[in-house]
Amino acid sequence: MVRLQLLPRTEHDRVREAGGEPDLTLSLLADMCRLNALVAVKRAGSGHLGSTFSSLDVVVHLLFSELDVAELGFEHPDRDVFFSSKGHDVPGLYAALFGLGVLPAERLLRLRRLGGLDGHPDVGVPGIEANSGSLGMGISKGRGIAWAKRHAGLAGRVVVMTGDGELQEGQNWEALQAAAHERLGRLWVVVDRNELQSDKPTEEILALRGLESKLEAFGWDVATCDGHDHTALRGVFEAFRNGAPDIPKALVAHTVKGSGVSFMEHPAALAEGGGTYRWHAGAPGDDAFERAFAELEDRIRAGFAALGLDPPVFEPVGSEERARGLEGEPESGAGLRPKVTDEYVVQAYGEALVELAQRNQELVVLDADLASDCRIRAFELAFPDRFVECGIAEQDMVSTAAGLARHGYLPVVNSFAAFLASRANEQIYNQASEGTKVVYALHYAGLIPAGPGKSHQSLRDVSLLGALPGTLIVQPGNAEETAALLRWAVEDADGNVALRLAIGPSPRRVELPDGYRPEPGRGTVLRDGRDGVLLAYGPVMLHEALRAAEELDVQGLDLRVVDMPWLNRFDPEWIAAEVAPYEHVFVLEDHAPVGALGDGIRRELEGRAVEVFGVEGWPACGSPAEALRFHGLDGASLAARIAARVRVHSAR
Amino acid sequence: MVRLQLLPRTEHDRVREAGGEPDLTLSLLADMCRLNALVAVKRAGSGHLGSTFSSLDVVVHLLFSELDVAELGFEHPDRDVFFSSKGHDVPGLYAALFGLGVLPAERLLRLRRLGGLDGHPDVGVPGIEANSGSLGMGISKGRGIAWAKRHAGLAGRVVVMTGDGELQEGQNWEALQAAAHERLGRLWVVVDRNELQSDKPTEEILALRGLESKLEAFGWDVATCDGHDHTALRGVFEAFRNGAPDIPKALVAHTVKGSGVSFMEHPAALAEGGGTYRWHAGAPGDDAFERAFAELEDRIRAGFAALGLDPPVFEPVGSEERARGLEGEPESGAGLRPKVTDEYVVQAYGEALVELAQRNQELVVLDADLASDCRIRAFELAFPDRFVECGIAEQDMVSTAAGLARHGYLPVVNSFAAFLASRANEQIYNQASEGTKVVYALHYAGLIPAGPGKSHQSLRDVSLLGALPGTLIVQPGNAEETAALLRWAVEDADGNVALRLAIGPSPRRVELPDGYRPEPGRGTVLRDGRDGVLLAYGPVMLHEALRAAEELDVQGLDLRVVDMPWLNRFDPEWIAAEVAPYEHVFVLEDHAPVGALGDGIRRELEGRAVEVFGVEGWPACGSPAEALRFHGLDGASLAARIAARVRVHSAR
Repeated sequence: MVRLQLLPRTEHDRVREAGGEPDLTLSLLADMCRLNALVAVKRAGSGHLGSTFSSLDVVVHLLFSELDVAELGFEHPDRDVFFSSKGHDVPGLYAALFGLGVLPAERLLRLRRLGGLDGHPDVGVPGIEANSGSLGMGISKGRGIAWAKRHAGLAGRVVVMTGDGELQEGQNWEALQAAAHERLGRLWVVVDRNELQSDKPTEEILALRGLESKLEAFGWDVATCDGHDHTALRGVFEAFRNGAPDIPKALVAHTVKGSGVSFMEHPAALAEGGGTYRWHAGAPGDDAFERAFAELEDRIRAGFAALGLDPPVFEPVGSEERARGLEGEPESGAGLRPKVTDEYVVQAYGEALVELAQRNQELVVLDADLASDCRIRAFELAFPDRFVECGIAEQDMVSTAAGLARHGYLPVVNSFAAFLASRANEQIYNQASEGTKVVYALHYAGLIPAGPGKSHQSLRDVSLLGALPGTLIVQPGNAEETAALLRWAVEDADGNVALRLAIGPSPRRVELPDGYRPEPGRGTVLRDGRDGVLLAYGPVMLHEALRAAEELDVQGLDLRVVDMPWLNRFDPEWIAAEVAPYEHVFVLEDHAPVGALGDGIRRELEGRAVEVFGVEGWPACGSPAEALRFHGLDGASLAARIAARVRVHSAR
Repeated sequence: MVRLQLLPRTEHDRVREAGGEPDLTLSLLADMCRLNALVAVKRAGSGHLGSTFSSLDVVVHLLFSELDVAELGFEHPDRDVFFSSKGHDVPGLYAALFGLGVLPAERLLRLRRLGGLDGHPDVGVPGIEANSGSLGMGISKGRGIAWAKRHAGLAGRVVVMTGDGELQEGQNWEALQAAAHERLGRLWVVVDRNELQSDKPTEEILALRGLESKLEAFGWDVATCDGHDHTALRGVFEAFRNGAPDIPKALVAHTVKGSGVSFMEHPAALAEGGGTYRWHAGAPGDDAFERAFAELEDRIRAGFAALGLDPPVFEPVGSEERARGLEGEPESGAGLRPKVTDEYVVQAYGEALVELAQRNQELVVLDADLASDCRIRAFELAFPDRFVECGIAEQDMVSTAAGLARHGYLPVVNSFAAFLASRANEQIYNQASEGTKVVYALHYAGLIPAGPGKSHQSLRDVSLLGALPGTLIVQPGNAEETAALLRWAVEDADGNVALRLAIGPSPRRVELPDGYRPEPGRGTVLRDGRDGVLLAYGPVMLHEALRAAEELDVQGLDLRVVDMPWLNRFDPEWIAAEVAPYEHVFVLEDHAPVGALGDGIRRELEGRAVEVFGVEGWPACGSPAEALRFHGLDGASLAARIAARVRVHSAR
């Protein structure tokens, strides 16, 4: 276990008050924020360091120097408003807000934990001006805020940070055009032009070539500079302040992904990674963490010396276990690292895709810059000519798939469920209306992992596709079922299939009968029982369902558990027979309680009472155990809820 | 009743075979298509003439001269593919396909009728290559098709027509960037640059200034020409053919909206309309029709003469009544023009909005270029500084509203339900996650009018918002309830409200008690009855519900009818008491049977059987009566369905 330490707020104050050369001061503050963000991410076990580091000089320059919000406070109506549209760079913003005294250390140390700091920006956190995490909405929001300030006669600029890959989302161009039309000169956009998307160069994924000329063509005043050079940044912002009051302004800030830690900086890291960048997401291992920390520490010590200050004083951070104990977590370690298997259903998906493509020449795979997470890199390598990289542009991806499907191909479309089923919903509807067949792989479906927060957790996707004629929605419970359902979707299904997939490791290996083959509309009994039947789907919830059954067993209650991968299709005879013996029918959703399996069963079994356990309200951000417990969906909570229901009933 | 006549296919053949000067021939053919499209729209009672006429020279030039598809046929894998992304210009395309012999006269004369031609393009119709009608998807589809052709080693260009206002949709820019990146040189885009959106100039709604430079910045080879000048068109297409094989090509074709009929041409029509253009949608009245017909006829006669041909022979078209009789329609006239009132709930909405804005200074209204249809023009005139025109960019509109709401405003966001609830779904989710309040006015919700077809009919919007925490969905049944629910949404509701609104005239005035005030979660009894209770919402379905009750009354069955405007919120006591006396609980949805009121009632009344009548499958295109009957949702069909259920049950 590495020793963790932070630079406390007081050290930032010392630096700010040293009266040193402004640019040296800002560079030093940015490195201090890098170090604290690194510690927060390491402690959280996940987070995006690459673009946190690329954007941090700009963020620090804005918050500590250019904007008035540190002075006026985040509630002042005349304040300058700053936020990042890409959102995954938020550890840097948190570190800056910590350095300014807006966030306390306790909160920074609870990044991605329940009651701590959301994995992506949320306005519930002090200093956060807008929810983001799903890409491409920021400039639109900024234009709304700029409009509001102008209309209300208030002062303040609105500065929106965007990624460069993010500009592939079409909504940006809607907003850029509209802001120019409305002459919102107080709206500034800073593009963190680090030239990398998740893990590959922007120019390789989907070239932005001539970004400046695009922005100019859309009516913006455009500047470029080195986004790590504070003198240059100061010059650009001064020019913006003195520029045309009715023309919005964009800075293309050329940055280095991973800036500030030599081996995370993208030219070096790309070379080392053979063309892919490995520091986009995820916490570094202990060794990498220590090397990164040491580099930053050295530079920070030198910076303090250069400013004539006494050496910086670091504050040790309690070990994870200790901190968690203090927070009242019941099981040591279970919060952050639940016991899991090495099964990833998404890995099985990626492998099955390659196998199926060998005998289905018309199978093509579409990606929206999530190839690694969606485990379709192996397909890309095996069949580069049947891999269509669409960049971060889900709508274009779906309508492109529609065109492919009309002309003889079978597209398998990939993105996170939260983005694909919602942002491209109308495009999916339009494709389906042409009567073609597309397989939609809805990755990262459900509540877990809960660290990234509500922009990424997908608890609505079944409801978003449920009223679409002829579209079947399935979610496999283990690797074997994943391969089988994908094969069924590709080779047997008549129309669209939406395949929900968990993204994390399976918490247990769900056992299916030997030679299992999916039968449309029928589930598989995982465990028999006489006191009630619980239908669930997906590795996460099946595990909790089985844990609940195990817990109930101890209490003398006997729960039947059924893996039901068909979320909107039922074999009428099977489902009727399945529930007939039971007074109590329970459904466990990895979804909101509205619009998913429970509603479908109620429709199918007209007049049958079905108790649904789903994710009520906004999904919690935290460790898997925290989030499941928060929603009453962990095995123990479920057991208690089921026992209460069964016993109350028996007692009547 | 005006006399209708077509120019039959044979007349087109005569012109094509005359061997005249090619440009004269094409101009004449375009006018012939204009005339036939005019007749089809007049007969249909609706359709979009303005952009049909602006685009027709290009369409005719492509189909009759430049492309090979008329020769090869629409199934040939090597064919050139042409389609229009904007889709509402399809009457012109139908007329051209009729002139080529691809569509028979019987079908052209059943525009927007059941079994005829869809109001927006549908691949079920011969010659239609892609479904469109919802804007901004075409270039993406074209890129998919171009990719497919290249990958399969097939010949053929892919030519996509877009509107100019349509380019406000961000998806276009996703696709433009992707096509350039993929070097799809065989993909051509023709922008019908008629400079008008629905009813106002593009430069006024949301300026495209410098469209050519935008397209160039996105990596396309760009040409411009007069889109009515066949010599110029020929020159551009020839240059495209000989251009760089790996660069996609865009033609900005400068056209005149309404071109070919003097008083419909936009410079004249805008002047006459005091700045708004009235020929975007809807069939002309008899007088305007006859004037337009006469102008076209004169020019066509002159064209025949100039080619040295005998005068054109027109073919009379049976009167509507006669034609309908032949098609087996039961009630004369009822199909096209059902008996309706002069009540428009959307008019009441527009008026209430103005009234509410007088006492709510923070109320702002956002529009996505549907201000006339959404009846918010009065608001725009009364409060121009609180009216935010967003152009055709629903995603930007919603995120802009999110920014406004965060800064003290109460945004009322307007578009058609089919576009707003689906295309901007993720943006609505993101806004809601910030805990602010926005009112979403979902116009044109439900099945009727059914003429525009499935791109416009919204049968999924309740399901699309149903799993969104804290969002209430309501649909008023008459003008009074519309004003009351809007007032409640603006002044009383705590969070987001989605207000579904019918767009057409109410088929009857639903009577509510004097001094009616909406009570959250409670409906209003419109008619008492002892044999069953039917809950419905919205003027269209309440009318059918009441008709069903009237019909059942004759049969000796007594149906209670309840107006239930709260689609996902229930007062538990009220709903329990409402259904308690009845063995049969029926719900009539103006929505798919999945994800709307019926599902909500089943969730609320756990274990109660609820029979739901909803729009199953893809919504039918046709007259209101045709569509309702097709789905078994007209009063008579409902009465039969209810009677069967009640009687079977009684007989047991």
